[in-house]
Amino acid sequence: MFEAAEIGHKLGKNQYRREEPKLRQALLDAQYALLDNGTFPVIILINGVDGAGKGETVNLFNEWMDPRHIHTRAFGAPPDAEADRPEMWRFWQALPPKGRIGILFGSWYSDPILKRVMGHEKRAVFERRLERIRHFERMLFAEGALILKLWFHLSKDAQRRRLKKLQADPDTAWRVTKEDLAHWRQYDKFVPLCAEALRETSTGEAPWHVIEGSDPEYRALTAGRLLLEALTARLTGTAPPQSPAAPPPEASLDGRNLLNTLDYRRTLSRTRYESRLARAQARLNLLTRHKRMRRHGLVLVFEGMDAAGKGSTIRRLTRAMDARFYRVIPIAAPTDEERAQPYLWRFWRHLPGHGAAVIFDRSWYGRVLVERVEGYCAEPDWMRAYHEINEFEEQLADAGAIVVKFWLAITQAEQLRRFRERELTTYKRFKITDEDWRNRDKWPAYEQSVCDMIERTSTTFAPWHVIAANDKRLARTHVIETLCEHIEARL
Amino acid sequence: MFEAAEIGHKLGKNQYRREEPKLRQALLDAQYALLDNGTFPVIILINGVDGAGKGETVNLFNEWMDPRHIHTRAFGAPPDAEADRPEMWRFWQALPPKGRIGILFGSWYSDPILKRVMGHEKRAVFERRLERIRHFERMLFAEGALILKLWFHLSKDAQRRRLKKLQADPDTAWRVTKEDLAHWRQYDKFVPLCAEALRETSTGEAPWHVIEGSDPEYRALTAGRLLLEALTARLTGTAPPQSPAAPPPEASLDGRNLLNTLDYRRTLSRTRYESRLARAQARLNLLTRHKRMRRHGLVLVFEGMDAAGKGSTIRRLTRAMDARFYRVIPIAAPTDEERAQPYLWRFWRHLPGHGAAVIFDRSWYGRVLVERVEGYCAEPDWMRAYHEINEFEEQLADAGAIVVKFWLAITQAEQLRRFRERELTTYKRFKITDEDWRNRDKWPAYEQSVCDMIERTSTTFAPWHVIAANDKRLARTHVIETLCEHIEARL
Repeated sequence: MFEAAEIGHKLGKNQYRREEPKLRQALLDAQYALLDNGTFPVIILINGVDGAGKGETVNLFNEWMDPRHIHTRAFGAPPDAEADRPEMWRFWQALPPKGRIGILFGSWYSDPILKRVMGHEKRAVFERRLERIRHFERMLFAEGALILKLWFHLSKDAQRRRLKKLQADPDTAWRVTKEDLAHWRQYDKFVPLCAEALRETSTGEAPWHVIEGSDPEYRALTAGRLLLEALTARLTGTAPPQSPAAPPPEASLDGRNLLNTLDYRRTLSRTRYESRLARAQARLNLLTRHKRMRRHGLVLVFEGMDAAGKGSTIRRLTRAMDARFYRVIPIAAPTDEERAQPYLWRFWRHLPGHGAAVIFDRSWYGRVLVERVEGYCAEPDWMRAYHEINEFEEQLADAGAIVVKFWLAITQAEQLRRFRERELTTYKRFKITDEDWRNRDKWPAYEQSVCDMIERTSTTFAPWHVIAANDKRLARTHVIETLCEHIEARL
Repeated sequence: MFEAAEIGHKLGKNQYRREEPKLRQALLDAQYALLDNGTFPVIILINGVDGAGKGETVNLFNEWMDPRHIHTRAFGAPPDAEADRPEMWRFWQALPPKGRIGILFGSWYSDPILKRVMGHEKRAVFERRLERIRHFERMLFAEGALILKLWFHLSKDAQRRRLKKLQADPDTAWRVTKEDLAHWRQYDKFVPLCAEALRETSTGEAPWHVIEGSDPEYRALTAGRLLLEALTARLTGTAPPQSPAAPPPEASLDGRNLLNTLDYRRTLSRTRYESRLARAQARLNLLTRHKRMRRHGLVLVFEGMDAAGKGSTIRRLTRAMDARFYRVIPIAAPTDEERAQPYLWRFWRHLPGHGAAVIFDRSWYGRVLVERVEGYCAEPDWMRAYHEINEFEEQLADAGAIVVKFWLAITQAEQLRRFRERELTTYKRFKITDEDWRNRDKWPAYEQSVCDMIERTSTTFAPWHVIAANDKRLARTHVIETLCEHIEARL
C-alpha cells in the first residue's frame, strides 16, 4: 500500500512556482461551480502518519479556495461527553451540506486504527468497524457525496529525521508533542495496520489516495490535483451509478400478510382500561426513573396509517414520564438545512443521550413508506434504505439506546369511520385533509410497503411491534405494557 | 401576588363541558392562523408550585391544538455537561421558530428561584439574574415573540391535601417524589420568593398571569382563554411598539475619530516579521495547551472593512493551534432555520465548550454595521443591539469564555490598492465583487458605524482591539501577541 510513497518523490521549486497559480485558479473555479451546482457535497478525509503534512494540506486547501465555503473539522479521540451517543454521531454533525466542501481532519478512521494499535480493541472489533465504515461511505456516495480520501505517508526514517529537525529549532520545538514521539515508537505496529485499513476500505465509491509527504511541493501539488480531478470529473460528468440493493420480498400468493391476519376484534372495557392503563403508567414511570436507566437512552418510533391513533397513544405514554425525561419529535417536511444533507441526518440530530427519551411521531421509515409509495425518492434509494436503517438502529443499540418501534394497525373500515368522525367534530377537523383521503386510495400499496418494512427491519436490537389498534384503549395499554417489558429486559 | 389565587376558584363541570369544545376550536383556529402568518413565535412559560396542574396544562395544550406544531421542552436543574456554556444556552436551543408555539416547562425562572431558596446563591446574584431575565424577555419581545407567562399556584393547605390524596391511592402514589415533599416543607420560604420574582419580572412586554390550580376545570379554561386572548389580540392587531433604545453618540465636531487618528504608517520588515510571528505562534500554542485552558472557552471575533485581511490573519492564528482545538465560523447569509429565530440565535448555536475555541470571521456585529448602513434592519433594532450584544458577551465571559474582538483597520487608499491587486491576480479575483465596490462608496457611513460600535461594545469582559492593518505583517503579529496577553491575563 505504501511502497510507492517511500521512494522519495520530489518536485523542483521552479515547477511548483509555475504550476501552483494555475492549479489554485482551477480549484477556485471548480469550488464556485460546485456552489452553483449545489446538488452534492464534497467530503475530504485527511489522514496519515504524523508529520506527513496533513495540517499543512488543510491550510493550503483553505488558502487556495474560498474558506468561507469550506467546513473544516478536526477530530481527536472521542470525548467523554459524547460517549453516550453512537461513535458516528459527531461525524454526522460535521458533514458539509450540498454545494460545500467539508474537510475532515482525523475522520472516522483514526479511532479504530489507534484503538487496535494500542491493543484496546480486538481484531474482530477492528474488522467490524471497518465494515461499518464501508457501509457508511457507500451510503454517503449513494446520497450523492463526492468522497476524497487522502492518506499522507512518511517512511520511518523520514519521520525520524523530521522530528529531529523540528526539535532542534527552538521556534518549532513546541510542535513535537509527547504523543508524536510515542506514535513514532509504534511505527512498525502502526503502519501495517493502516495499510490493512486502507486496503479494506478502498472501494469504488470511495477509493484511497496515498501521497508521500516528505517533499512539501510534491505533496501540495499532488493533493491539489487529486481534488481538482475528482471535482472536475463529477461536475462535468453524470452522477455515478449505485450498486443495486436487494429488492423487497414478493407479495405472497395467498394474499395473506402481517396486517390482514391480525385480530382486530378484541376490545377492552372502559373500567378495565382505566385500571390497566394506570398500572402500566406507574410501571413505566418507575422504569424511567430506575438508576440503570442513566446508562441507556430510549428511542421510540410510532408509525401507522392516518388516524391510527399515534398522537393520542404518545400522549398516554408521556403522561407517565417526567417531562424532563422525554422529547416528542413530530416528523414533517424537512427544513432547507436538512434537505442539504443525507436522508438520515435530520434524525441523527435529535438522538437522546443516556437517561433521556426521544419519541418519534413518524420517523426515518417515511423513506420506505410514503416516499416509496408516492415516488418521492427513486427506487434504488428506498431499496437501500432498509439496510441503512438497520445499521443506524444497530449503532443506537450499541451505544446503549433501547430502540422500540410500534406500528399501530387499523383496518380500512375503521379508518373510514374515524375520518368521518373527524369531519363531524369541529376541533378534530384539522386532523383530516384532502391528502388523507388521497392516501386512503392507495391503501393496498401502503399495506405492501408496511409488510415489507416490518419484514426487513424488525431486528433483535430494534424490534417492530404490530399493535391492532381498532380499539384505542386496547392499543394504548398494549403499547405501554410492551414498552415496559422491553425496558425491563434491558435493565 | 398570590392572594387572588387562594380564594378557591371553581367552575361547574357543566359549564366546562359547554365551553371546552368552543375554546378548543378557537385555539386550533388561532394556531393555524399563527402558522399561516408565520411572522412571530409564541413562547409559553409554565411555572408554579408542585401539584398545581403544570404538567396537566402542558398535556391539555397539546391535546387541544395540533401537537405537531408545538415544541414542548421541559427543564430541570442545569446538567453538568452544559455547565461550560452560559446558563441561557439550553433555552436558546429550545426557542420555537416563527409561526410555532413553544411550551417551556420549567423555564429560566426555576433555577434562580430554587438556588435562592436553597441558599446556594446570594440575594445580589438572585436580583442580577432577574434583571438579566427581564432583558432577555425584552429582546425576545423586540424580535417579535409573543410571550405568555403562566404561574400555577396552590395555597399551602391545598398543596398538602393534594399530596395526601395522591399518596393514599396505590395507582398514583408514584407521582409523589421525595423532592415534592421536600419542596412542600419549604413552602413558606419558597412562595414569598416566587412572589418577588413575579413582581420583578412582570413587565409590559411579558406580564405574568397567576392561575389558581386546585380546580382542574377552572384552571384549564383560564389557561386556555389566556392563550387564546393573547394569540387573537396579536394576530388581529398590529405588532406592539418597542421601548426606545439609546441612540448612538453624535459624531464629534472636529471630525477626528477612533479610525482616522490611528497610525497606519508603521511597518514590519520581512525578517523581523518571520521571527516575531514564529515566537508569537509558539507562545499561543503553549497557552492553548495550558491545563487551565480546560476551564475556559475562547471566542474570537474578527471584523474589518472588505480586504482588511481577516481571512489571512485568522490563518496565521490557526496555524499555531491544534486543529482539534478551534473552529472557524464564517458568517454569511442565514439559513431558513436561522431566519425563523431571534437575531443572536445563529451565534449561540456555535458557542464553544471549555477547552475549545471558536473564531468568528464576521459576527453578530453585522447587526450594527452592514445591517445598519444598508438598512437591512429597522433603526430601533440595531439601536437595541448594542445592549443585547454586551449582555450576550457578558454571559459568555461569566461562563468562563475569554472573549477578544479585533477590528482590522485599513485606510480607504489601502483598500483601493488591495481591490485593484485582487482584480489583477486571477486566483484572488473571487474575493472582489461588485458589492465590495458598492460598499466602498459608503465608507463614511461604515466608518461612523464602526466608531459607534467600538464606543458602545468595548467592555472589560470583551474588549475591542483596533489594529492598524495597512501593513499585513504588523497586523498579524500584533493580533497574535494581543491575544496571547489576554489569555495570559485570564489564566
